[in-house]
Amino acid sequence: MPASQYDVLGIGNAIVDVIARTEDDFLIQHGMHKGTMALIDEPRAEAIYASMGPAAQISGGSGANTIAGVASFGARAAFVGKVKADRLGRAFTHDIRAIGVTFTTPPALDGPATARCYVLVTPDGERTMNTYLGAAQNLTPADIDERAIAAAGIIYLEGYLWDPPQAKEAFRKAAEIAHGAGRKVALTLSDAFCVDRYRDEFLNLMRTGAVDLIFANERELHSLYQTSDFDTAVAALRADVTLAVVTRSEKGCVILAGPSGEAVPAAPIDKLIDATGAGDLFAAGFLTGLARGKDHKTAARLGALAAAEVIQHLGARPEVSLKDLAAENGMPI
Amino acid sequence: MPASQYDVLGIGNAIVDVIARTEDDFLIQHGMHKGTMALIDEPRAEAIYASMGPAAQISGGSGANTIAGVASFGARAAFVGKVKADRLGRAFTHDIRAIGVTFTTPPALDGPATARCYVLVTPDGERTMNTYLGAAQNLTPADIDERAIAAAGIIYLEGYLWDPPQAKEAFRKAAEIAHGAGRKVALTLSDAFCVDRYRDEFLNLMRTGAVDLIFANERELHSLYQTSDFDTAVAALRADVTLAVVTRSEKGCVILAGPSGEAVPAAPIDKLIDATGAGDLFAAGFLTGLARGKDHKTAARLGALAAAEVIQHLGARPEVSLKDLAAENGMPI
Repeated sequence: MPASQYDVLGIGNAIVDVIARTEDDFLIQHGMHKGTMALIDEPRAEAIYASMGPAAQISGGSGANTIAGVASFGARAAFVGKVKADRLGRAFTHDIRAIGVTFTTPPALDGPATARCYVLVTPDGERTMNTYLGAAQNLTPADIDERAIAAAGIIYLEGYLWDPPQAKEAFRKAAEIAHGAGRKVALTLSDAFCVDRYRDEFLNLMRTGAVDLIFANERELHSLYQTSDFDTAVAALRADVTLAVVTRSEKGCVILAGPSGEAVPAAPIDKLIDATGAGDLFAAGFLTGLARGKDHKTAARLGALAAAEVIQHLGARPEVSLKDLAAENGMPI
Repeated sequence: MPASQYDVLGIGNAIVDVIARTEDDFLIQHGMHKGTMALIDEPRAEAIYASMGPAAQISGGSGANTIAGVASFGARAAFVGKVKADRLGRAFTHDIRAIGVTFTTPPALDGPATARCYVLVTPDGERTMNTYLGAAQNLTPADIDERAIAAAGIIYLEGYLWDPPQAKEAFRKAAEIAHGAGRKVALTLSDAFCVDRYRDEFLNLMRTGAVDLIFANERELHSLYQTSDFDTAVAALRADVTLAVVTRSEKGCVILAGPSGEAVPAAPIDKLIDATGAGDLFAAGFLTGLARGKDHKTAARLGALAAAEVIQHLGARPEVSLKDLAAENGMPI
C-alpha cells in the first residue's frame, strides 16, 4: 500500500451556517425538534430567516467541520462536497481552503444556490438546525476522484449524505475505492432523525463491512437500535462494527473495539455557548489521532479537546489552532 | 416640539463585516495600521480576502452597530444607510430589522455591491479594518427623510460619512433638519485617520454648532488637535463643543460638559476577545441614557456596560439583550 497523500478525506454536504440566538418559544412556534436537524425547502428557509434574529454566517456542514478540524490539528485533510459558484459558495470555498484543507470539487454553475443551515441556538447552548440542501443535492459519483480517495488513510463520510438523491452513490463509490486501496472507511450517523430515515441502510453498511468505524451520539444510537436502553444499544453496536465511538456530551465518550469498551471523560469547559459542531470536532480529533498512529484513548482525548474548544464559541469550526491546543495539553500531533 | 417617534436615528455606512483571526505578522505583511480603518478598492478587497483566514460574516458598520445597540436597550431606533439589493444587502437589512431597528432606506438596484469590511482580529483582541465602501457610496441627500429626522430625539452621525462623496451632504441636510426641529445632533469622530482626512471640516462642524455632542477615543482626540498631550486636547475639545465623551478603553471615559469633567470607569470583563464595536456600543448606551433622560454619568455607565458586552465575543453587535443587561445592573431603561 503506497504512503497516504491525505490523513483524512471527508465527503459531505457543503453548507454555510446562518446562526442566531433564540428562545425556546421560537422552536415551539415553528414546530422544530430541539437538538435535531430538519430538511427544509426554499420557502420554509425564507420564512425561518424572516422570523429569526440577527444572524452570523459561518461555514459549516458536518463533515466539512470535521475535516476543517483535522486540518487545524495539522494533519493532511481533503474535502469533497458541492457548492454553487455564488457568494456563499465562494465563502465556503475560501474558509475551508484557508484552514488548510484541499478542496477541489468543481462548483455547480447553475441550479439551486449553495446550501444553508439555519441554526437556532437556545440559552442552554443547544442548537436546532434547519437545512436547505440547495447545490449540495448535485454531488454525484462523478465528483469522486478515484486517485484522491485511494490516497487517503481514512475516508470519512456523513450519514447526512443519504439525504441528497445521488450523494449516497458517491458515498458507496468512495467506500469501495477506499477498501480496494486498503484504506479505512468511517461513518458518522449524523442525527437521530437521519438514522430514522435510513436505519436499514446504515445497519446494512455496518454489517456488510462497508464501514470500519462508526461515530454516534446517544440519541443516534438509541434511534439506530430503537431502544431506550443504553447497554442494549451498545451491545448491538459492538456486534455490528469493528470500531465505534459513542459520544455522550458532558459524560465523555465510550470506545467500543471488539470485546473491549473504554470510557474517556469530556474535556473541561468554562461555559457552553453553542453546541454546534461538538460531534463533528470530536470526530476530527479521533480521526487525526487514528491517522497519526495514536492509541484509541489518546485519539478520544484529542476528540474531547477539539469538541470542548468548539462549544465555547458561536460556530462549528475551531477558532484556535487545534495543533497548538493539543501540544499545550501534552498530545503533540 | 412634538413628542419624538424615535429616541435615536443614526446615519452611517451600511456594511457587513468579514471577520477573521490573524497574527500580527499578517498586518505587517499587508501594510496595515493596527487598530485603524483603511479604505480599500475592490482588487485590494479580493487580495485581502484571498490571503486571510476562515471568516465569519456579521453585520457591522459603525453607526449601524450603535443603532442596533440602542434598539437592544429597548429604545426606539432608526437607521439610514445604503446597501445594494444583493445577498449581503439582504443580510444587513435582515439583521438590523431583526434587532428592532426601523430601516427603510431603499437599496441600490445596480452599481457596486453592498459594502464589506475585512476585520482582522489579532491575539490581543485589537481589530484592524479594511473597508470596501461599495453601495454605501450611493447614499445621497435624497435618502434623508425629513419627517423621520425631525421626529427623532437625537440624530447620530458617523465621521466615516465624510468618505463617500455625497454622504456628507446627506449628513449636513440631516443636521439642519434636526436642529430646525429642536433636536440634538451627535457625531462620532470614527477613526484617527478619518479625523486626519477631515480635521478642518470636523472642527468647523463643532465650532459652528452644527453638532451638539462629540464621541471620540483618545487616538481620535489626539489626531483632531494634533497633540500628544491628553490634557491639552481635552481643554481644546471642551472649548469647541457643548458636550463630549472621550473613551479611553480599559481606563473608562471622561464626560466633558461645559466647565465640568467627570470620569466613569470601564465595566469589568472576563476576557477581551474582539475590540470591534467597543466605541460604537459605548455610544449606544450613552445615547440611550441621554434620550431617556438619565444623567450623564448613568448614560456613560450604560455605554460602558454595552461596550463590555460586545468586546467579549466576535462581532460588533450585542449578542444578549442590553435591556436585560442594564436591568440586571440596576439601570432599567
